[in-house]
Amino acid sequence: MEQPRAVVLLSGGLDSATVLAIARAGGFAPFALTFDYGQRHAIEIDAARRLAAAFAVARHLVLPIDLRAFGGSALTADVPVPRDRSPEAMSEGIPSTYVPARNTIFLSLALAWSEVLGAHDLFIGVNALDYAGYPDCRPEFLAAFEHLADLATRAGVLGQRFHIHAPLLKLTKADIIRRGLELGVDYALTTSCYDPTADGAACRRCDACVLRLQGFAANGVRDPARYAP
Amino acid sequence: MEQPRAVVLLSGGLDSATVLAIARAGGFAPFALTFDYGQRHAIEIDAARRLAAAFAVARHLVLPIDLRAFGGSALTADVPVPRDRSPEAMSEGIPSTYVPARNTIFLSLALAWSEVLGAHDLFIGVNALDYAGYPDCRPEFLAAFEHLADLATRAGVLGQRFHIHAPLLKLTKADIIRRGLELGVDYALTTSCYDPTADGAACRRCDACVLRLQGFAANGVRDPARYAP
Repeated sequence: MEQPRAVVLLSGGLDSATVLAIARAGGFAPFALTFDYGQRHAIEIDAARRLAAAFAVARHLVLPIDLRAFGGSALTADVPVPRDRSPEAMSEGIPSTYVPARNTIFLSLALAWSEVLGAHDLFIGVNALDYAGYPDCRPEFLAAFEHLADLATRAGVLGQRFHIHAPLLKLTKADIIRRGLELGVDYALTTSCYDPTADGAACRRCDACVLRLQGFAANGVRDPARYAP
Repeated sequence: MEQPRAVVLLSGGLDSATVLAIARAGGFAPFALTFDYGQRHAIEIDAARRLAAAFAVARHLVLPIDLRAFGGSALTADVPVPRDRSPEAMSEGIPSTYVPARNTIFLSLALAWSEVLGAHDLFIGVNALDYAGYPDCRPEFLAAFEHLADLATRAGVLGQRFHIHAPLLKLTKADIIRRGLELGVDYALTTSCYDPTADGAACRRCDACVLRLQGFAANGVRDPARYAP
């Protein structure tokens, strides 16, 4: 029997690589969707391509979408990335790295592709712990999007229910890494740093690097990412 | 006092031109958002630019987004456009011109721009009568998106409520044209045809042309659009 199809949002980071492994382990044929949205670094797209190849996905689509046209975020505009913050400081308020409506946009595009593919399962690597400050990483946001998907689509009108899978939602970074290692994810293929050096080495100091290094340390495993000396 | 800002989805068609006039008449400073999503005809984008100029909008953003990458619709892929259908036939089932999750995608992007602009009002020209077959033109879809917008954004978390304005929702095409004429819309600037000739003349026979011509006829006014002989 053919495996059910699923659209998996794949950024090239540690979280979405783990989600891709979980979708595949769950019996889905993964179709990976990566957005080229004016990230500071093409490094992320390269990582997504390496991961898609390593996981032998059914198809990998890299869709350009210029979120810089709107302005308004550290990840797409030219404002400084915070450094050396404690996890407590990271979880206060809404981070400057918040991109307006980003997950709504990404899920909407994933929904369109799902409908064309006849897929009803969407996987996204959002996490409510490490990214507590992001409005669109909360369970209530995901529930609202799932409800919207059923109303927004031909498939929904015909009685199909969409399911937004967020398997990392309540995991710590250490939990995520443990799960990925169990599933054989090669984290050397992933990139997390918000502010890498010109040759692509991770900075160790942005929120993403701090969380990632702590997550590997908690598992007693060396992070295979390449860090600046 | 500065007028409140609003993002208005502007396709270059008759409906969205009317919505732009309604938003302006309602006291909003309109920011017009047009998507270049692989429509068959650049004619629509040109019409949107003419309308934005005629209405002297605060800003007009034309955002490329390649929905063709997903496949799956008469408006973006190479499948025939239906012709000479009665309004009854048009309202049966979901039209082949349905673009998967299109309004979800468009509203998501409008939401991102709204948040950056500090706007909380989005205008969209959906209509539940002429386009009864489109799942994402229904009031329940709009209500679900409005709910999602409050959960998805920093502004929503901070207590701001978004409002999705769909002033054409329950109007007939004749009502829409009457309202636009009252507000001084120059419908010669708009384009509606799904299947224009190479030099941009409307076909008279696709669903959009049929509805438009009937709407003008019901008002006893000549449609100023240029039609094929």
